[in-house]
Amino acid sequence: MTQAATLSFDDLWARIQRVFETAGVRRETAAAVARGIASGERDACKSHGVYRIEGCLRALAAGKVVPNAVPKVHVSSPSVVEVDAGGGYANAAYEAAMETLVARTRESGLAALVIRDCLHFSALWYEVEQLAGYGLASLSMCPSYATVAPSGGDRPLLGTNPFAFGWPRVGELPYVFDFATSVAARGEIELHRRAGTPIPEGWAVDCHGQPTTDPQAALDGAMLPFGGHKGSAISTMIELLSGAMLGEFMSQEALDFNGTTSILPRHGALILALEPGVFAKRSGRDPIAEGERLITAIEGQGARLPSQRRFAARARALSEGIRLSAEEVEQLERFEALGLGAVAD
Amino acid sequence: MTQAATLSFDDLWARIQRVFETAGVRRETAAAVARGIASGERDACKSHGVYRIEGCLRALAAGKVVPNAVPKVHVSSPSVVEVDAGGGYANAAYEAAMETLVARTRESGLAALVIRDCLHFSALWYEVEQLAGYGLASLSMCPSYATVAPSGGDRPLLGTNPFAFGWPRVGELPYVFDFATSVAARGEIELHRRAGTPIPEGWAVDCHGQPTTDPQAALDGAMLPFGGHKGSAISTMIELLSGAMLGEFMSQEALDFNGTTSILPRHGALILALEPGVFAKRSGRDPIAEGERLITAIEGQGARLPSQRRFAARARALSEGIRLSAEEVEQLERFEALGLGAVAD
Repeated sequence: MTQAATLSFDDLWARIQRVFETAGVRRETAAAVARGIASGERDACKSHGVYRIEGCLRALAAGKVVPNAVPKVHVSSPSVVEVDAGGGYANAAYEAAMETLVARTRESGLAALVIRDCLHFSALWYEVEQLAGYGLASLSMCPSYATVAPSGGDRPLLGTNPFAFGWPRVGELPYVFDFATSVAARGEIELHRRAGTPIPEGWAVDCHGQPTTDPQAALDGAMLPFGGHKGSAISTMIELLSGAMLGEFMSQEALDFNGTTSILPRHGALILALEPGVFAKRSGRDPIAEGERLITAIEGQGARLPSQRRFAARARALSEGIRLSAEEVEQLERFEALGLGAVAD
Repeated sequence: MTQAATLSFDDLWARIQRVFETAGVRRETAAAVARGIASGERDACKSHGVYRIEGCLRALAAGKVVPNAVPKVHVSSPSVVEVDAGGGYANAAYEAAMETLVARTRESGLAALVIRDCLHFSALWYEVEQLAGYGLASLSMCPSYATVAPSGGDRPLLGTNPFAFGWPRVGELPYVFDFATSVAARGEIELHRRAGTPIPEGWAVDCHGQPTTDPQAALDGAMLPFGGHKGSAISTMIELLSGAMLGEFMSQEALDFNGTTSILPRHGALILALEPGVFAKRSGRDPIAEGERLITAIEGQGARLPSQRRFAARARALSEGIRLSAEEVEQLERFEALGLGAVAD
C-alpha cells in the first residue's frame, strides 16, 4: 500500500516534470509547468499544487492545450513585450519572455508583458514574486471562465479574474497579494454542495439573479464579485485590459470555446512591471525604504500581510520537506506510469 | 435675498476661475482648477463641485498650496513623464503634462504620468475620462490622509485612496469607474454623527480596533477598506505605487505634514495610460469592438455601468443648465467679492 511521503522541492519538481514529459509535453514546457505546480505545493496552495496535475493532463487529453508549442517572444514597442504561447501552457511562455520584460522595464521604467493564447492555470503570485526578486513592482491579471455576474446582474459573464501585485523588499520576501475578484472560488461552493451545507450570504445569486445560500442554486446561477460594485468594476477592468485590449478571449468566449468549466481555460494574460528606482529618482528618496515604513506599520498593528501564511508554509517545506498524503503519492505514481492514460475516460 | 440660479457650464467655469484669481492664484492654474470643479458640479458630484471651493481656498489661506507654482514637465524615460506641481493644485500640473503623456503612450504602447508634490482634491474620473477621449485606457490612483485601518488592524494608516479606470468607447461616453477604496467616505460618517444616527456595520472600527456603529467612535477610530482583506491589499498597493514608489508622501506622512484632515492633503499621483491599438495589433482584433461586447452584455443584464448616474446628470446639465441653490450662489458671490478674506477665521 502506498504511504505518505516527504519530498524535497527539487525531487517533487523532477517527478512532476516527468509526469508531463511522459504525457508528451516538450521538456522545457514540462519543466516550467512542474516548477509552478511544485511551488504551489511547497507553499501549501493546495488548489495550485499536485491537485492541479490532473486538470492539466485532462486539458491535454481533450486536445485543449498544445504539448509541443514553442513560445515566441516579440518586442512590439520600447515598453511592450509579447509572447505567443501558441496554445501551450502559460508557464513556459512566461519563462521564455521574463528576462526580456525585466530588461525593458529597467530601460523604460515600466513595461508590459502580453501572454497570448495560453492555457493559464497557475497562481499569479508566482510571476509577481519573481519580478520582485529583480527589484520590480508588478501587476498581473487574466480573465478565466464566465461564472460571475456583474454587480446588479443575474447571469455569469465575468470570470473569477485573479489580480496580483508584487512589491520588492530588501532582506524579506516581497509584499505580494493574489486573489480572485469573486467573493469565493467555485470549488468552495462545490464543497458546500457535497457537504450539504448552505453557502454564506453574498457569495452567489440563483438563475433568477436572486441572492441564494443554496450551493446547487448558486452553481446553476452565478457567483458574485467581492466588494459589491467596486469589485465588479475591477473584475470588468481585468476583462477589458487582459482580454479585449489584447485581442484575446474574455471569460465568456473562453467558456464558449471549451463549452465547459471542467477543463482549464484558454486565454491571454497581462503583466505590468515598474522599476521603482526610475520612478523615485527625481525625489531623492529610496522607494523601497519608503515601502518598508508602510509595511512595518501594517505589521505593527498586528494586521497580517497577504501571503504570510504561504511564506510560513514555504519555510516549513524548505526545512522539513514537502509532505504528500498517501493519496497524492499514489496519484503521482499513477501519472508517472501511465501518462495521459491515467486520465482516459 | 439671493436666489437659486441656473448657469451654463462655461459661465460656472468662468465664475469659479474668477474666485481663484481673486484669491491670488495664477490664471492658468485658476482655469484648470475651475474646470475640474465646474465638471464635478455639472456631473452632480456635489462633493467635488462648488462645495469644494471653500476647502481649496482654506488650503491656500493656510499656506498649504502654492498659488503661483508653474508646473514643470520632465520626460524621464521613453515611458515615464513627470510633472512637478511645485506644491500647487494638481489640476494645472495634469493639464501641463497631459499631451506629453498621450504622445508617449501612443509611441510606447504604455506610459506613466507622475504628478509630484501637488494639492490633489479632484475626482480621478476627470483624468481617465479625458484620456479615454484620446482613445487610451488608463488607471489613476493617489494616496490621501491616514484615516483607514488595514484589514485586521486597529489604527488609521491608509488613506481613502481613490482608484479610477477609463476605457474608450466609440460613439458613447467611456467606461469609467472611480471610487474610494474605503467602504465609506469620512463625510458620510460625519453626516451620521450630526444626524445622531448609527453608521452601518462594516464601515469602521473604534480606537480599540473593535467594530462600531457609533459615528463618533468611528471618527475617533478608523474607517475600513471596502471588500475586507482584498480591498485592504488594493489600498496598500495604491500607497506603494503612488506614494513610496514616487518618493512622494504616503497617507500617514500627508497627515503628519498638515496635522489635520480639515485641510486638503498634499501628495503625488500616478496615472498609467495604455494604447489598446498597440496591444491588440498582433491579434488582428479590434480591442474597442471587443470591449463593446462586454459592456453591452453588462447592460443587457440590467446591471448599471459605473458613472451612468454621473453621465445622466451631465446630459441634464448640458441641456437645462447647472442648477445652484441660493446658498451655493451666495457662497460663490461671497468668494468672488472677498477672495481669501471669505475664509479668514
